Amino acid sequence: MPSLESLGERKIIEIIWKQLNVMPNLPLGFGDDVSAVSLGKDELLVIKTDMLVDKTDVPRGMSLWQAARKAVVMNISDFAAKGVKPVALLVALGIPQKFTAKDIEQIGKGLNSGAREYGAYILGGDTNEASDLVICCALFGTCSASLLMKREGAEPGDILAVTGEFGKTAAGLKILLENLPVPSEVENPLLDAVFMPKARLKEGLALAVSRAVNAAIDSSDGLAWSLHELSKASHVGFIVERLPTAPEAVKFAEIHGLSHAELCLYGGEEYELVLAIKPELWDEALDAVKKAGGSLIRIGKAVKERGVWLKTDKGAEPIEPRGWEHFQSCTGETRG
Amino acid sequence: MPSLESLGERKIIEIIWKQLNVMPNLPLGFGDDVSAVSLGKDELLVIKTDMLVDKTDVPRGMSLWQAARKAVVMNISDFAAKGVKPVALLVALGIPQKFTAKDIEQIGKGLNSGAREYGAYILGGDTNEASDLVICCALFGTCSASLLMKREGAEPGDILAVTGEFGKTAAGLKILLENLPVPSEVENPLLDAVFMPKARLKEGLALAVSRAVNAAIDSSDGLAWSLHELSKASHVGFIVERLPTAPEAVKFAEIHGLSHAELCLYGGEEYELVLAIKPELWDEALDAVKKAGGSLIRIGKAVKERGVWLKTDKGAEPIEPRGWEHFQSCTGETRG
Repeated sequence: MPSLESLGERKIIEIIWKQLNVMPNLPLGFGDDVSAVSLGKDELLVIKTDMLVDKTDVPRGMSLWQAARKAVVMNISDFAAKGVKPVALLVALGIPQKFTAKDIEQIGKGLNSGAREYGAYILGGDTNEASDLVICCALFGTCSASLLMKREGAEPGDILAVTGEFGKTAAGLKILLENLPVPSEVENPLLDAVFMPKARLKEGLALAVSRAVNAAIDSSDGLAWSLHELSKASHVGFIVERLPTAPEAVKFAEIHGLSHAELCLYGGEEYELVLAIKPELWDEALDAVKKAGGSLIRIGKAVKERGVWLKTDKGAEPIEPRGWEHFQSCTGETRG
Repeated sequence: MPSLESLGERKIIEIIWKQLNVMPNLPLGFGDDVSAVSLGKDELLVIKTDMLVDKTDVPRGMSLWQAARKAVVMNISDFAAKGVKPVALLVALGIPQKFTAKDIEQIGKGLNSGAREYGAYILGGDTNEASDLVICCALFGTCSASLLMKREGAEPGDILAVTGEFGKTAAGLKILLENLPVPSEVENPLLDAVFMPKARLKEGLALAVSRAVNAAIDSSDGLAWSLHELSKASHVGFIVERLPTAPEAVKFAEIHGLSHAELCLYGGEEYELVLAIKPELWDEALDAVKKAGGSLIRIGKAVKERGVWLKTDKGAEPIEPRGWEHFQSCTGETRG
């Protein structure tokens, strides 16, 4: 009988999914970034849960305050990708016995900061003793069904765009997990990307209202994986014409002789939005995001043929469906 | 600096609570069985999260199917206590590496059974690797604000009632954790109480509609603790005139020379409802619960003076505010 290690997260989800009765008339497919149920008329209740476990989600050097904030932000990011305003969260905690009152205080402060940064509140939760630090958030909000951005819906000809550059988190994690040295002016923004991730909520909300988006996903499993998920859900393909690699990641790659495409595509733990945008509404989308204080980077287009490719001088090479694997090298030593 | 062990669960909640900004206009106080926000007009969104961790919540002998079902049922029980119909759940899992595909299947089946037993569905969730088995459910539903049963609201003169007998779970846990032998006709119902807890949902829903209830709580932390919580929230006291000890628990206590009052009051992990009922609507409450197929047992009354007492031949003796402490003797060996 295969153990968890050989099964992998996606196989586990598949096994569980097979045991469940599916609720009728769901407005959003299983496997989208969030779940939703109808509240009548055009209104949806949107809900999401995501669990942070220190030994796989918290790299060495991240404080408890940062870990707790991140546990909230990774849930907010999924709401951003659907264009849904978060209202409030519940937080269930698993806390190791060695934790002190000061540790708990830092966790509480981090949770509150993560929520308030995006206008949400923490309403309550549950506390347990556990071997790992476990922070499990359940986030909810409501939205108009007609404004919800889904993973499905991209059409050939759509403009492929992202809300920011990629690769900084992957590089930052390499610094932390593989002790790769870099000058501090490069190190700081890379570590900041790991320790203080941002959800693109204002961008997502503005894009939803613009009605320019045909399909959307967040990039927490990496750009490549997100593109494949979007392709699968929308039954289209994508050609990436320009890799949106952050300059700091390019510099890091140069210093250590790494591929910057690898950092950009297969990093993960990044919270940009990946979007298929109606070409005729591109200017509106750009305008909406700019007004919200964000940026929108055109990186390619949707095509009829299923698959994901990177355009190169020699033609188009396939982008692999490799996703983010939880980093196994974390120590779980998260102290405030 | 005190560690988690010396802090205790309630102190931890207090520390976290102090770090949070409180959402304005909440219809339900922090610390009630569920959280709620207004959806406009008279409608509330009700939400709850409760985490099961195998090493403290799953006694030896409980299967993975039963553990997963219990993780759902303990959330449903809080909805029952508030008179709210559950709609759907999200489930975040922390899974130890040694688990097999068969184990995961049993967890999936147990989750689905727990939800469907009470008319709810599982919509989605999240999967992680963790040292313990962690099952974190987030349950939601909607209700009319005027029907929500709260912890506050009990008045002197109210009839104190419960939806079933107590003590079986405490006795069953003693069998499992202290290896106390008993004849099988006593053992079976006691173990069944531990392995297959039931939420009093139909009773709670019927009572809410009857409008006979002034205050309500579920008894997952034990009868004594629940009475103290109800007393605190409602600013009244309670006199227990008759202990609702299950005959199987009485028999178990006799065999082992234990106090059956101890089993009844301080056991915990029981999911009966504890209710303060308007005396003039007692018959309506009784009728509503009977029609729903349940039972309602009158055990005492609410009084003006704060505190909780047990009426005895010699007068009234205080019932201590001792609650359920997670059972530390579990092995976490939960295999299907």
